[in-house]
Amino acid sequence: MSLRNTFLAAGMLALAALSFSASAEEHYTLKLAQTWGPNSPILGDTTKRFAELAEAMSDGRVTVRIDAANKHKAPFGIFDLVRNGQYDMGHTASYYYKGTIPNAMYFTTIPFGLIAPEMYAWFYHGGGMELMQEVYEPYGLLSFPGGNTGNQMGGWFRKEINSLEDLKGLKMRTPGFAGEVMSELGVAVTNLPPGELYTSLERGVIDAVEWVGPALDFPMGFHQIAKYYYSGWQEPSAEVQFLVNKKTWERLPEDIRQILTVAMRTAAYDMYIQSMHESGVAWSRMKADYPDVTHKVFPPDVIQALRETTNRLLNEFAEKDPMAKRIITSQREYLKQIRPWVNISDKAYLESVAGQ
Amino acid sequence: MSLRNTFLAAGMLALAALSFSASAEEHYTLKLAQTWGPNSPILGDTTKRFAELAEAMSDGRVTVRIDAANKHKAPFGIFDLVRNGQYDMGHTASYYYKGTIPNAMYFTTIPFGLIAPEMYAWFYHGGGMELMQEVYEPYGLLSFPGGNTGNQMGGWFRKEINSLEDLKGLKMRTPGFAGEVMSELGVAVTNLPPGELYTSLERGVIDAVEWVGPALDFPMGFHQIAKYYYSGWQEPSAEVQFLVNKKTWERLPEDIRQILTVAMRTAAYDMYIQSMHESGVAWSRMKADYPDVTHKVFPPDVIQALRETTNRLLNEFAEKDPMAKRIITSQREYLKQIRPWVNISDKAYLESVAGQ
Repeated sequence: MSLRNTFLAAGMLALAALSFSASAEEHYTLKLAQTWGPNSPILGDTTKRFAELAEAMSDGRVTVRIDAANKHKAPFGIFDLVRNGQYDMGHTASYYYKGTIPNAMYFTTIPFGLIAPEMYAWFYHGGGMELMQEVYEPYGLLSFPGGNTGNQMGGWFRKEINSLEDLKGLKMRTPGFAGEVMSELGVAVTNLPPGELYTSLERGVIDAVEWVGPALDFPMGFHQIAKYYYSGWQEPSAEVQFLVNKKTWERLPEDIRQILTVAMRTAAYDMYIQSMHESGVAWSRMKADYPDVTHKVFPPDVIQALRETTNRLLNEFAEKDPMAKRIITSQREYLKQIRPWVNISDKAYLESVAGQ
Repeated sequence: MSLRNTFLAAGMLALAALSFSASAEEHYTLKLAQTWGPNSPILGDTTKRFAELAEAMSDGRVTVRIDAANKHKAPFGIFDLVRNGQYDMGHTASYYYKGTIPNAMYFTTIPFGLIAPEMYAWFYHGGGMELMQEVYEPYGLLSFPGGNTGNQMGGWFRKEINSLEDLKGLKMRTPGFAGEVMSELGVAVTNLPPGELYTSLERGVIDAVEWVGPALDFPMGFHQIAKYYYSGWQEPSAEVQFLVNKKTWERLPEDIRQILTVAMRTAAYDMYIQSMHESGVAWSRMKADYPDVTHKVFPPDVIQALRETTNRLLNEFAEKDPMAKRIITSQREYLKQIRPWVNISDKAYLESVAGQ
């Protein structure tokens, strides 16, 4: 039983109101706006988990009220909602705001960059947190890692991609930076609303679609239409973010801040693990129910062209913007340091036991 | 400022002692015994981190007093120290107690088993936590994941291993289950104290030594003597454990239990990420300072023999003990479900970008 509850139980409420400072007895309701819908799997589970952890650890002194996209109507406006103080917190992905705050996108993912545990190592030990805070600071925001989808797949294709030639004229839904890279290679990139993707793929309006990975692709049903499922390059991990209004933060007592910080950190790690689990379940089920579904990797010339184009675009961003340069360089240097280890450990192990 | 501090500040201590229940005002000091030494990197950092998180989130209502091995003198007796109530908590690895509680070892690692994120997915979504609790329950203990070393290396070898023949008569330090498997393949397994390993390797008393991975191998200096660093098979991840005395736990108020649970969970994830980071740093440094150091993988016939022997031993354990059977089967089934996903995501991605 908490001190607050004990106090109420002792029937001494009047005394409390007189004797104790407001901050000690105060109850904090934090309003959180999320990009996701009200019953969004994995992403929505993460904000619920964060709220539950914060409420339980604070013994009810904190309540987190989550508004989903159907409520606030601004799924890609979370940055503004929290910055303007309409919400205390947000849960979204930094790269949705590349128009307003272009340097934030590198904290979600960089194509051909870090896988999830490498990304966390960069955030917590490689200077990533400090750079992210520097980018959000001028907007009166704090930002924290908010969960990882894990490695994202390259997409569902109706035809095999055997060479760079096969990409030319291909109609594909793939948004953002990946779309820019693909379009440089001759792909006709379209960005249709999620609700139209299945039908568009079925009717041949598009030939390919990139979404996330098995867990979130499964409910979309693309595996019922497109046979080839390609491994990815564009989001080797994708970290979403918690945003916190700094004025709200500064009004909270230190122990509550600690509780919120740890609740965000745990909810983020938990999302990575949940994503991995649910992708395992979904991929097993897809293969069992649709034996025609085939996993493919892009041929080396396609990977090389995607990589060269990615690096050229990143170099252009870096040349134009000193902060972009610092972030891109930091991640590249970190990758050079950590990847050789990942290659001789998890990669070598997974290879040595594959197919036996 | 906390309610407790506010209260003291208001000079109402006497009233508190009269009016409030002991549990509300109480300060909890938890004594924790760890297997590791007082300044143990990574492993010792994890208990310090746990203590800091618990203290900060509880606003000082909890203090964790950590005793290292030099104090309690029983590095491999943590299970008994916590079970007997001499300590409230422990931080150790389940597989150290295979003499007393043999089924606990599977919660640290199984050779040819799960890598770290797969292991966490098994604990939190695949029934692992429930099985672990069932094993510790009869001893009046709770057990929680306590941090992961990541993928462990197969060891430092003075000579290349090109076939099964090369293992015959090889003198190697490799303890536990891995040692049993190695000895079935003709390796002369020895278990020397850590302080004698460097000199023994240098003088040819042993030909090979398995320790952990770059971060913890680096200070041992094996790379100065043995040229070949082999990828592992015996501990694809190794999860250490927090143990908690159940009577202590039951005396704690619910919000403190929540705080401790989340502090343990975060400290565990953080150890995995720190291990990854520090192994990246150490492996880079070893290669730079000792360019002769060469990474190797065991040839397929060696991997296959190790794997068959491992499976034969695991099957024997499973036949003798229904609980062992349930745990081994649970991990095997989970691996079958999750590994195909890991293979088409992180593994495929790491392969597609390797060496470019």
